[in-house]
Amino acid sequence: MPLTAPLRGVVPPVCTPLDADGEVDTASLARLVGHLLDGGVHGLFALGSTSEVAYLTDEQRVTALETVVETVAGRVPVLAGVIDTTTARVLDHARDAARLGADALVATAPFYTRTHPRETAAHFRRIRDRVDLPLFAYDLPVSVHTKLSGALVQELAADGTLAGLKDSSGDEGGLRRLLVALGGRTGRGTGPAPGFCVLTGSELTVDAALLAGADGVVPGLGNVDPAGYVRLYDAARAGDWDRAAREQERLAGLFAMVDAGPEAQMGRSSSALGAFKAALRLLGVIEHGATAFPQIPLDDSAVAEVGERLAAAGLLSG
Amino acid sequence: MPLTAPLRGVVPPVCTPLDADGEVDTASLARLVGHLLDGGVHGLFALGSTSEVAYLTDEQRVTALETVVETVAGRVPVLAGVIDTTTARVLDHARDAARLGADALVATAPFYTRTHPRETAAHFRRIRDRVDLPLFAYDLPVSVHTKLSGALVQELAADGTLAGLKDSSGDEGGLRRLLVALGGRTGRGTGPAPGFCVLTGSELTVDAALLAGADGVVPGLGNVDPAGYVRLYDAARAGDWDRAAREQERLAGLFAMVDAGPEAQMGRSSSALGAFKAALRLLGVIEHGATAFPQIPLDDSAVAEVGERLAAAGLLSG
Amino acid sequence: MPLTAPLRGVVPPVCTPLDADGEVDTASLARLVGHLLDGGVHGLFALGSTSEVAYLTDEQRVTALETVVETVAGRVPVLAGVIDTTTARVLDHARDAARLGADALVATAPFYTRTHPRETAAHFRRIRDRVDLPLFAYDLPVSVHTKLSGALVQELAADGTLAGLKDSSGDEGGLRRLLVALGGRTGRGTGPAPGFCVLTGSELTVDAALLAGADGVVPGLGNVDPAGYVRLYDAARAGDWDRAAREQERLAGLFAMVDAGPEAQMGRSSSALGAFKAALRLLGVIEHGATAFPQIPLDDSAVAEVGERLAAAGLLSG
Amino acid sequence: MPLTAPLRGVVPPVCTPLDADGEVDTASLARLVGHLLDGGVHGLFALGSTSEVAYLTDEQRVTALETVVETVAGRVPVLAGVIDTTTARVLDHARDAARLGADALVATAPFYTRTHPRETAAHFRRIRDRVDLPLFAYDLPVSVHTKLSGALVQELAADGTLAGLKDSSGDEGGLRRLLVALGGRTGRGTGPAPGFCVLTGSELTVDAALLAGADGVVPGLGNVDPAGYVRLYDAARAGDWDRAAREQERLAGLFAMVDAGPEAQMGRSSSALGAFKAALRLLGVIEHGATAFPQIPLDDSAVAEVGERLAAAGLLSG
Repeated sequence: MPLTAPLRGVVPPVCTPLDADGEVDTASLARLVGHLLDGGVHGLFALGSTSEVAYLTDEQRVTALETVVETVAGRVPVLAGVIDTTTARVLDHARDAARLGADALVATAPFYTRTHPRETAAHFRRIRDRVDLPLFAYDLPVSVHTKLSGALVQELAADGTLAGLKDSSGDEGGLRRLLVALGGRTGRGTGPAPGFCVLTGSELTVDAALLAGADGVVPGLGNVDPAGYVRLYDAARAGDWDRAAREQERLAGLFAMVDAGPEAQMGRSSSALGAFKAALRLLGVIEHGATAFPQIPLDDSAVAEVGERLAAAGLLSG
Repeated sequence: MPLTAPLRGVVPPVCTPLDADGEVDTASLARLVGHLLDGGVHGLFALGSTSEVAYLTDEQRVTALETVVETVAGRVPVLAGVIDTTTARVLDHARDAARLGADALVATAPFYTRTHPRETAAHFRRIRDRVDLPLFAYDLPVSVHTKLSGALVQELAADGTLAGLKDSSGDEGGLRRLLVALGGRTGRGTGPAPGFCVLTGSELTVDAALLAGADGVVPGLGNVDPAGYVRLYDAARAGDWDRAAREQERLAGLFAMVDAGPEAQMGRSSSALGAFKAALRLLGVIEHGATAFPQIPLDDSAVAEVGERLAAAGLLSG
Repeated sequence: MPLTAPLRGVVPPVCTPLDADGEVDTASLARLVGHLLDGGVHGLFALGSTSEVAYLTDEQRVTALETVVETVAGRVPVLAGVIDTTTARVLDHARDAARLGADALVATAPFYTRTHPRETAAHFRRIRDRVDLPLFAYDLPVSVHTKLSGALVQELAADGTLAGLKDSSGDEGGLRRLLVALGGRTGRGTGPAPGFCVLTGSELTVDAALLAGADGVVPGLGNVDPAGYVRLYDAARAGDWDRAAREQERLAGLFAMVDAGPEAQMGRSSSALGAFKAALRLLGVIEHGATAFPQIPLDDSAVAEVGERLAAAGLLSG
Repeated sequence: MPLTAPLRGVVPPVCTPLDADGEVDTASLARLVGHLLDGGVHGLFALGSTSEVAYLTDEQRVTALETVVETVAGRVPVLAGVIDTTTARVLDHARDAARLGADALVATAPFYTRTHPRETAAHFRRIRDRVDLPLFAYDLPVSVHTKLSGALVQELAADGTLAGLKDSSGDEGGLRRLLVALGGRTGRGTGPAPGFCVLTGSELTVDAALLAGADGVVPGLGNVDPAGYVRLYDAARAGDWDRAAREQERLAGLFAMVDAGPEAQMGRSSSALGAFKAALRLLGVIEHGATAFPQIPLDDSAVAEVGERLAAAGLLSG
């Protein structure tokens, strides 16, 4: 579904289920896509950080994106992450994504390298120039170790380089300033970048981001409870902020599953991705809960705790 | 005004006006306190970062706090920052604050040192133990370079060490998780720390923090426009989130004054504090706009830009 | 030249010359390899950070490594960087490197991801297990944003996972502690990891590292002046530390070329790589001085300054 | 002993022994000063980080400095740390230090605040201007979270603001570049800042720093084994680099005492300071091994390990 209008709504970053050999489990992935569409989501983001894109080989990336695009079959737009260190490598992924039928690209600033903001601007401009798909900037300092400045995003929004921003920076104040600079809650359409789309990746403050005028959310936890995020979004759109906040609170409680893995023994990222996948397995959506190597898997007690969180949130009968 | 009930509302961190010699300008400070009380604020935070506490000698700190306490004369609670590297030094400030009539203390984690969370917990416990005033933890990683974990804050809230938290970490997701763990928007009173007070220091996302259940805000920009923040707070309390968000947007526009100082030539902190003080001078509240040495002052063109922001926000007739 | 004994000496990370279209200029690369071998170097490191590996597509990486291996023709060992985010992606590069005839692999810790030390250990173990070539750990926190602890390196050295370490962490104190733990300047052969090779990537403190017992150096600046680094190494081996230090001083002066690019207008990395390539062009070794996109190129005045540095160091007749 | 010539040699940062009440144990401190002078040190640095300056009240700082100055009685120069957040507060300490008879001041860049390099330069200039004692810059990013650039140090050295630098940045490459820019190992006297003194605070790479042309060292571990550092220094001055390196190796082995405290249960800083003090107690120099609150003390097993390190280094009969 081509992005003819700005994307709005809930756009989960799709987990990539793996089989016992660590290969992409396409049957589980197709079921997961169905689970998300059944939940009412407005788009899908394949090959993002939550998809473990950094752990997938090029071949596995193709398999995963292909499966998502084919299963979606045009019902909602599919954004494809094109995550790699620098421009030329990103372009290789971008061409794959275009060929496979993605509706938009999502690229970070260069990483591993030390890159000047002027170089980052050139990076996004060349991606937009070379592959004819709408381009989202993915602001993810926790992974790429630079923050996209508001000024840079505004410049690239105004000149048409960027179709949107996925803001996973955690800098909610900066996000607010950006939204106000783009015209604010009611003036975006007549602002400097009328069709520009702002999605937050901060899954615990979605009510806040929508209240501030963001267009939507890319929630990792949305893999587990897409319908919850859709309810949150619908309440916000209806101006029922109390209902939105209550839903957000329930989801924040559910999110605590990311702490199930013992902190001293595994990374916070492995713990979060492991919890989402364990939850999807407990819900019967995917077959295995494995995360990609070398991530340490959740142990049985952690998986049990994930189950308790699901039950407490009303997603699993105890 | 002793803190018998949890503090709620707008609690600006009071700027410390300086005279031409760099000494505390007590007349201007008294006028500023009056300006804030006239704006309807619910408390004042003296000797915080916005007060340039790190630039003031011990003697100047005493003068500033004394002036605030005497001018307030019990009309609202006065929180006093007790900012220093470690426990023994903080206690010296805490005893001063108690003697001068502060209603509560605000302390950060140790800084300059490298401190383990268990040591940080002991630090707060000893402060609470040695000086009998309600104690707020000031979570300010940008200055002290450690983040107070949600688990630590919960522990110190539940055992009565802390009366509250001033969260200037910028981690809105973490704040949401904390609020939910404390009982959420409606369950705080029956949660693990019923009287615990959560104030956000993120002045650009106050509507969001209040929607999430925070009790109030400590906005640096509230020096310039206290009435605006009070309107924002009142709208939120009334459940009129659209009005709250509109007010927040106006304040976010006003906040852009912090960029008036040229980034290549001065620190972001000098630029922000210089802008607030320039605005207060233009508004006729304080006599000089000087920030403490060695902060670089705003030049004339930056001051003019501050004036334009004031005019655009309706605070100064162009 | 298979690594049958621990590698010792000067092992420059080979720059990757590019042509006007941004493709690998294999003729220039072959000349550069000749220049380095003529300078007396003891090994070559292809596809490292100085090789702009993060900017090269997979195809370009193959071309570059192939050119280096073929030109070297077994005269010295060739180490191949296998730089990618996580294990599975690294293994794809490692298989390429083995096929192309590299003598050893050089891998960093995972990056982009947040990875626990236990996961990092598993990462190195699997690489060693799956591709049968000696494996060097590349400790490069400036790029991967984690530091390999001395304890982890010792563990992986002692159990045979790692053949060596390329230490570009800049933590010279940590390097000293590691060397002492491995047996010190005279006891390495009877220490816990007798054949383990320690190379420093800190090109300004090579005399110090050799005095501390390091086996060799991987100097980016060695592209420009390989003979200088070989003289430094030879002086150190001969125990003539004053001569080694004098040579290091001359090279530190030459290194100042990395500041030729204006700091406000380009990244420090672009500036350094641009300077090395400009120098190689001025020396007649490579045809173009271009760095890979999106790095900002040096301007004429910066190139002129590079020329002055070369002249001052006696490498170019003014 | 006034600093009429550049300071050279071993200048330990003097630990501050505490009694059972956490007060400065002046008798132990005097014994420690004697222990250091007996070891042949060339100067003393009171009120540095190793002195736990950040934990001492103003009154305790005065007591500690007074004790050091009086015990030294002019036999070697005494440098006094004047550690506080910003200029006005530093000046208060500087006036105390001058009054108490310190021979030089040691100040860091401002901390807690966010400070522009131009502001940092003004900070050092005003300290030099207001208190007439030679001024050393203390480059300690681990505590103050900014690094003094080589360019800034050169500027302040050349214009006479700074008499010297204590470099605890760990950036040995940057230190080498600075030394070369100041004239190098043999040209310092005719360089841009002839009398400028460069001391390294990196106690594990002293041989390297001296080989590079540094004037001396400020080793925390020098509290425990001053004679060892003096032997290292003497060997280096005599050009016997192998002997210097052997001594450094022995000291690096001794330094491993800082890991005696369990990492999961205490900060690295508490562990290091606790180990030094435990060692001094075991050596009979000071009475109590306590570190300042809220640092977690070493447990018995850690103290026993410190004893083993002392024995292994030949400082304590097993």
